[in-house]
Amino acid sequence: LGGCFQSIVPLPANMRTSTSLKVRLPVLIFALQIVMLVLYSLFVTYDDNANAKMQNNETNPMENSMYRDYPYFADVQVMIFVGFGCLLAFYRFYGFSGIVFTFLTAAFSIQWAILIQGFFQFYDNGKIHIGIINLLNAEFACAVVLISYCAVLGKTSPVQLLVMSLLEIPFFAVTEWAVLKYIRINDAGGTILIHLFACYFGLGVTFVLYRPSLNNGHVKEMTSYNSDILCVLGTLFLWVFWPSFNSALTIKGDDQHRAILHTFIGLCSSTMTAFALTAMFNKRGKLTMADIQNVTLAGGVTVGASVDMMISPVAAYALGIMGCTACFFGYKYLTPFMARRLRIQDQCGIHNLHGLTGLISSMAGICAILLATEEIYGPSMYQIFSHRAPPEQALFQFAAIFATIAASAVGGLLTGWVMSLKCMAAPSDEDCFDDELFLDVPSDFDTGKSIIPMNITKDHHHIHYPM
Amino acid sequence: LGGCFQSIVPLPANMRTSTSLKVRLPVLIFALQIVMLVLYSLFVTYDDNANAKMQNNETNPMENSMYRDYPYFADVQVMIFVGFGCLLAFYRFYGFSGIVFTFLTAAFSIQWAILIQGFFQFYDNGKIHIGIINLLNAEFACAVVLISYCAVLGKTSPVQLLVMSLLEIPFFAVTEWAVLKYIRINDAGGTILIHLFACYFGLGVTFVLYRPSLNNGHVKEMTSYNSDILCVLGTLFLWVFWPSFNSALTIKGDDQHRAILHTFIGLCSSTMTAFALTAMFNKRGKLTMADIQNVTLAGGVTVGASVDMMISPVAAYALGIMGCTACFFGYKYLTPFMARRLRIQDQCGIHNLHGLTGLISSMAGICAILLATEEIYGPSMYQIFSHRAPPEQALFQFAAIFATIAASAVGGLLTGWVMSLKCMAAPSDEDCFDDELFLDVPSDFDTGKSIIPMNITKDHHHIHYPM
Amino acid sequence: LGGCFQSIVPLPANMRTSTSLKVRLPVLIFALQIVMLVLYSLFVTYDDNANAKMQNNETNPMENSMYRDYPYFADVQVMIFVGFGCLLAFYRFYGFSGIVFTFLTAAFSIQWAILIQGFFQFYDNGKIHIGIINLLNAEFACAVVLISYCAVLGKTSPVQLLVMSLLEIPFFAVTEWAVLKYIRINDAGGTILIHLFACYFGLGVTFVLYRPSLNNGHVKEMTSYNSDILCVLGTLFLWVFWPSFNSALTIKGDDQHRAILHTFIGLCSSTMTAFALTAMFNKRGKLTMADIQNVTLAGGVTVGASVDMMISPVAAYALGIMGCTACFFGYKYLTPFMARRLRIQDQCGIHNLHGLTGLISSMAGICAILLATEEIYGPSMYQIFSHRAPPEQALFQFAAIFATIAASAVGGLLTGWVMSLKCMAAPSDEDCFDDELFLDVPSDFDTGKSIIPMNITKDHHHIHYPM
Repeated sequence: LGGCFQSIVPLPANMRTSTSLKVRLPVLIFALQIVMLVLYSLFVTYDDNANAKMQNNETNPMENSMYRDYPYFADVQVMIFVGFGCLLAFYRFYGFSGIVFTFLTAAFSIQWAILIQGFFQFYDNGKIHIGIINLLNAEFACAVVLISYCAVLGKTSPVQLLVMSLLEIPFFAVTEWAVLKYIRINDAGGTILIHLFACYFGLGVTFVLYRPSLNNGHVKEMTSYNSDILCVLGTLFLWVFWPSFNSALTIKGDDQHRAILHTFIGLCSSTMTAFALTAMFNKRGKLTMADIQNVTLAGGVTVGASVDMMISPVAAYALGIMGCTACFFGYKYLTPFMARRLRIQDQCGIHNLHGLTGLISSMAGICAILLATEEIYGPSMYQIFSHRAPPEQALFQFAAIFATIAASAVGGLLTGWVMSLKCMAAPSDEDCFDDELFLDVPSDFDTGKSIIPMNITKDHHHIHYPM
Repeated sequence: LGGCFQSIVPLPANMRTSTSLKVRLPVLIFALQIVMLVLYSLFVTYDDNANAKMQNNETNPMENSMYRDYPYFADVQVMIFVGFGCLLAFYRFYGFSGIVFTFLTAAFSIQWAILIQGFFQFYDNGKIHIGIINLLNAEFACAVVLISYCAVLGKTSPVQLLVMSLLEIPFFAVTEWAVLKYIRINDAGGTILIHLFACYFGLGVTFVLYRPSLNNGHVKEMTSYNSDILCVLGTLFLWVFWPSFNSALTIKGDDQHRAILHTFIGLCSSTMTAFALTAMFNKRGKLTMADIQNVTLAGGVTVGASVDMMISPVAAYALGIMGCTACFFGYKYLTPFMARRLRIQDQCGIHNLHGLTGLISSMAGICAILLATEEIYGPSMYQIFSHRAPPEQALFQFAAIFATIAASAVGGLLTGWVMSLKCMAAPSDEDCFDDELFLDVPSDFDTGKSIIPMNITKDHHHIHYPM
Repeated sequence: LGGCFQSIVPLPANMRTSTSLKVRLPVLIFALQIVMLVLYSLFVTYDDNANAKMQNNETNPMENSMYRDYPYFADVQVMIFVGFGCLLAFYRFYGFSGIVFTFLTAAFSIQWAILIQGFFQFYDNGKIHIGIINLLNAEFACAVVLISYCAVLGKTSPVQLLVMSLLEIPFFAVTEWAVLKYIRINDAGGTILIHLFACYFGLGVTFVLYRPSLNNGHVKEMTSYNSDILCVLGTLFLWVFWPSFNSALTIKGDDQHRAILHTFIGLCSSTMTAFALTAMFNKRGKLTMADIQNVTLAGGVTVGASVDMMISPVAAYALGIMGCTACFFGYKYLTPFMARRLRIQDQCGIHNLHGLTGLISSMAGICAILLATEEIYGPSMYQIFSHRAPPEQALFQFAAIFATIAASAVGGLLTGWVMSLKCMAAPSDEDCFDDELFLDVPSDFDTGKSIIPMNITKDHHHIHYPM
């Protein structure tokens, strides 16, 4: 293990075998699974709704909590495994890895989050009590890990990804628990806890894993016709089920109803804006797939922090436009700046889609809180603002935003350092964005040897198509 | 803007830059978005189920209307964005455009339909009151636009599509409102209002946009192995969720139950029939993908107008066979005839999948109404036929069919004329069916230059594969 | 028809026309559809929840059974048509066939199962009473046929598949009815009746259809980059909705809640294990797509027989690991052994994913029954074990396992014999795994002529990628 504590150095091609997963991956996975078996056997039991013993003759089976939670859980499952999987398969030579590493990382993150979140939020009498609501919470934690993963897509081994998940889940669970328990924020769509946390954690990781030679682009950092279509499919699955994501954890009834309305309206308006901006800023007045794949989704994040409040439909519409605009210009100007000047290589531009939009959303949430009156909300005012009066609540939201960003950035830096240890099978610079490194590929796999690395100028999160 | 009022002329290749979206698309979109912002802010508010103020201590949150509507809304979302998107991506060089223009058109249509349908159906006290039921209705209006779009697939710019949606939604909303309010028809599956309207509107548009030189086929009017598979995926998503589509707006309870049963049975039987016919009429006794992609779905439309009635399961089965047969022979004989003799180029054959099947369905609906007795329906007879006695109702159905067809055809012709104005960035004949015109494409995009335009004979909605 | 009763012989290339579907397929389909029309008209009517006459003023429409069953039905639909369809499209030259034959076989199986299961389970007063619950049961019967189909994927004509479905559905329905009615087993996830039955039926069929020359591999038995991705998508759709599959037919309430929890946990743990094993046993320490496509799903089957019981979450976790391990080594050692020594060519390795896991699951189910006490279950003990006391029940489970395996193997052998009749349009050995035999393919279809059949060594269910 001593050899592990050396910082990563780009390896010459003849030493590529050191990225073999033959021993590393099974050892790590089996160790994790043994830990899981022990912890699950010691601590995990059913919650009341899943426990046969808690039912009696007067229990109405149809009032079981699963009927309220499962539909949203199923929708989020599609988003995580199909939506994210396809979205991250956009690189021409990295489609297998994109979809398959997402699968592995998600499957581990969820089982791990059930435990860790359980300890903090569902622990009672020496046991973690689980039901579908825990699975749903764990999927949100999983979404956090996958968003952070986007920052280092193409540059990490499955071993590194499991380690990232192993560390990020506890960082996230502690932050979530502290913020929810002590600061008690309104954040129905998870803007602060999910999007901002995931973004700044991911930026922390990628800051540590900085690869200067990739700032000029990588010969394989490009899409293909099929990979672009697969990625759009991922976008569409995320788009379609985003209302479920944003409304899954709201109060039931009219709150959840509004969450769906706002998310949907925000997505519609940000999709329109994205198409306008992509044509406007393209040199030849054409549409750019990368914008359609990413920027269209900005509205879903931007409505998040005020998604269940009485902000009025037009506010959701305006938030969609604002978030989309910030996201678009972020991709255009901020991402290249951060890579060159701040050593932050944000591979998929999570700072645009989750950071900038998250900040706008947080501010909008604070405005919505400050503008809340009993005249608008009626008696449910005291249910939504159960913790404290609106002005006071606004201050606490501010505190939560800063606390979350600070905690996630620190956690990301630490996690990035662990991921940079030598035994993690990190790919060399030249092996990035290449399925062949960690996967057996079929005989028709395009090895990319025919590509001449000229006319490649970096634009957005992947190479601008040379013409 | 004066230059706009000239009819479209095929442009030589060196003038292609006039299809740049750089100014046109952003100007149109931002203008539309400003209109939306104004109208949403002036007129749109929450309906009672989404309004916090309308809840009180006695409100049971789980009885909120969203729990009845949202599952169907989510299913229809998948059909619109994923199903339609993939289905329209079947051209080899037009996959990006097929999926991406569907995305844009759908996102705009829905937000626009929320407003326009709202004015006609949900307007009260100076405000449009919205909840998930409005979103669901707007998705149906969106389906209408997308079906009409199929008639001109590959030949239209995104500007034209937005204009089409801008005009079709009001035409549709007025027709829908008039038919539902004054003629009060039974049309649970939307056969008359959705499928017939969309079909004849689309045919009206394509009649005006007639391109004689494309009657002999276009060199890029072909599929690829991957685009065919993507298209089948679209078919499968539509097939799988069609029961939700047909049952989303029925009366709750046994009516909705029957709607699901009939749709499913109709789809199963039409799928079987489609496989039989495609093998039977193929020269070498093989299956044709285009038939499997389209004709299998005919049963879903054909059961539409009687989908909630007590027609008995065998009737749904028979309707599936009949609709499928009409649809198949429509593709084989009617579509080529219409293109050559009637100047109606129906690119995806919507007259087969929505027109012929819609007419059969309408007739079946009338029969079902005439055969309805209290013996069969019991007391719910008066709930289903709440407007008038069955024989009288049958006459009104006839009137509604003719009124809908007339309104949609006129609307389509007018809309087609507007779409043919010069400023709409319509592609020249030779640029049709080509992603490169409006989208940046990756370097592996097949420019199609190697294709020799021989042995190409037009069959169904795309080129018969030359062997 | 006399010519039909000759056993199949590999045909020389110039006789390939005898696989034309031009007459055979339409004749078979139309005959089946006439039978359906007659039987549906004579015997099929609505069940009480779908029958308008059975509703009255006191009926609460929202308590209609469809609201309990439809969400699970819709999820299983996605699994069957999209999940299975994509999963079986993994061969490079057989993607069209994989997805399209699944579509046809499924559409027929379901309509046929509604009738046959209806006769055995929902027959009353001379009528089969159908509602969504029948459709759900029929989808499970359809899953049985599709699993069996996997054993002969690439080697069968659509005519053979329809005949297989025609015979397998009655064999299955009789077995299901006998086991449920007389042996009355606990098998919520369908491990015994679905997975074991489907597996041994499929092995029976493939035993009869043995093709010795294919034991050395077939030049077209390989994947492509795109087909592998499509297949992973299928895996992900199955993975995501498997909890719905395993819980669709449990008792409502806490039982269904546990079924979802256990399935999800089992899938998570088997996914982890699959990634560990695939890296560990790959010569160069890389991941193998075939393992990720198949072995990850083992956990879903393995938790099946005890899925609704109080086995505790850690038991589901352990079952996921065990099932996955058995499945993985089955692919590695048992499948090649069975092909070479037992004349059983199990094309997709169903004996690993459904047989071995099914046996483990059955044993686990028996243990769970033997360990059940009132202390754990409370009063619901007598609801779950409504038939008899646990020890006695365990014996009956054993009997059911053997009876099911015996019945399915015999049924499979008989069905295989019928499928081997000469008129079934079975492909010759060299035409296997090739879309061109039964489908029109687009001009960019890779005919595979450039592939040099060297370095091809059989591994798992498809060729190991030569490097």
